[in-house]
Amino acid sequence: METQTTNQPRRGRPAKSPQQLQAMRTALIRSGMELLTERGYSATGIDAILKPAGVPKGSFYYYFDSKDAFVAEVISAYAEFFANLLDKHFSDVSYPPMQRILKFVETAAAGMARYEFRRGCLIGNLGQEMSTLPEPFRIQIEAVFFDWEARLALCLQEAQKLGQLSNRAAPTKIAYLFWIGWEGAVLRAKLERTDKPLKLFAEEFLTIYQSNTQP
Amino acid sequence: METQTTNQPRRGRPAKSPQQLQAMRTALIRSGMELLTERGYSATGIDAILKPAGVPKGSFYYYFDSKDAFVAEVISAYAEFFANLLDKHFSDVSYPPMQRILKFVETAAAGMARYEFRRGCLIGNLGQEMSTLPEPFRIQIEAVFFDWEARLALCLQEAQKLGQLSNRAAPTKIAYLFWIGWEGAVLRAKLERTDKPLKLFAEEFLTIYQSNTQP
Repeated sequence: METQTTNQPRRGRPAKSPQQLQAMRTALIRSGMELLTERGYSATGIDAILKPAGVPKGSFYYYFDSKDAFVAEVISAYAEFFANLLDKHFSDVSYPPMQRILKFVETAAAGMARYEFRRGCLIGNLGQEMSTLPEPFRIQIEAVFFDWEARLALCLQEAQKLGQLSNRAAPTKIAYLFWIGWEGAVLRAKLERTDKPLKLFAEEFLTIYQSNTQP
Repeated sequence: METQTTNQPRRGRPAKSPQQLQAMRTALIRSGMELLTERGYSATGIDAILKPAGVPKGSFYYYFDSKDAFVAEVISAYAEFFANLLDKHFSDVSYPPMQRILKFVETAAAGMARYEFRRGCLIGNLGQEMSTLPEPFRIQIEAVFFDWEARLALCLQEAQKLGQLSNRAAPTKIAYLFWIGWEGAVLRAKLERTDKPLKLFAEEFLTIYQSNTQP
């Protein structure tokens, strides 16, 4: 049974002002992002999400219509967070395009190390759990991968223009394959509790697709 | 509440002969393999495992000491099943070594299609769930990947001897990277409900690592 030690609304008395309501929703989404990134959907109960956000048990449905409506918002928030991370790296003109991809991998690997490789990828977790998830999540998660693919493909096209990408395959295909390998590498990093799978995968990716004939 | 319609031992009266005991344990392990391959660890309750095996609710602990002892046996059984599948393909001298890998992918893809891409890889599912699993499973699952790696590396060494493998990397490193990509591809196949990720990954693997200078 949880106790209220902070200045949060008490059981049965949720926040009333629009600002309080929004702050609580934001806190719950943040808590949901952290838990789904670490544990996935099946292992995460509503109670576990409420506690770190300081929201009393009975009032979850004051903030969200259903667990699934909540998870849909968590996926969107994670997708936005990750899209910003990708943009930050893939648009960083202080590195050549192929090295930007390596920089993204380094940042993501450091992020996993910070949580001792307990937290992986929220999208990968839910994708893995697909057979137990409500059907609408499939379309939402596929769209997130498609978005990541498009962002990476743009960076690869830039690499191609600069002669830094080999002609082995089209940027969109390479981007699709990158995210396949990436999710496999994140899974192994969680298992092995090291960044070795992420680093090896990224090195191999660059070795394979980086052109040796760049100007 | 489940009902007994088949000729199974009734509640509170588990099988008594060593043969019956073994048959029940085998049925439970099979049921566990199917469920963990489809749903993973967190989403699979003991009751869901008992029902398809025709074992009444109260008698699980007559056959296994604990849920974790049971899951450890399920992992071993899956590892053995999968090792046999790999051996069957990787030792098939009617194909050149690199094509044997493609044949394995085709068999695995057909297996996923048979269950409408609901069932993926038991080892990948549990690896993904690592942060919520009892610690001893980590070592067991890492050992399974290591075993798969060793089996694939042997096939790649054969390819190397025949000049069918490029000198890009050592067979053990290529094998390690294969299983990373493979798990990522299985995850995407479950999400997209097609064998496209498996096939694209396998084609790319062969394109990259197959030598063009074979005799």
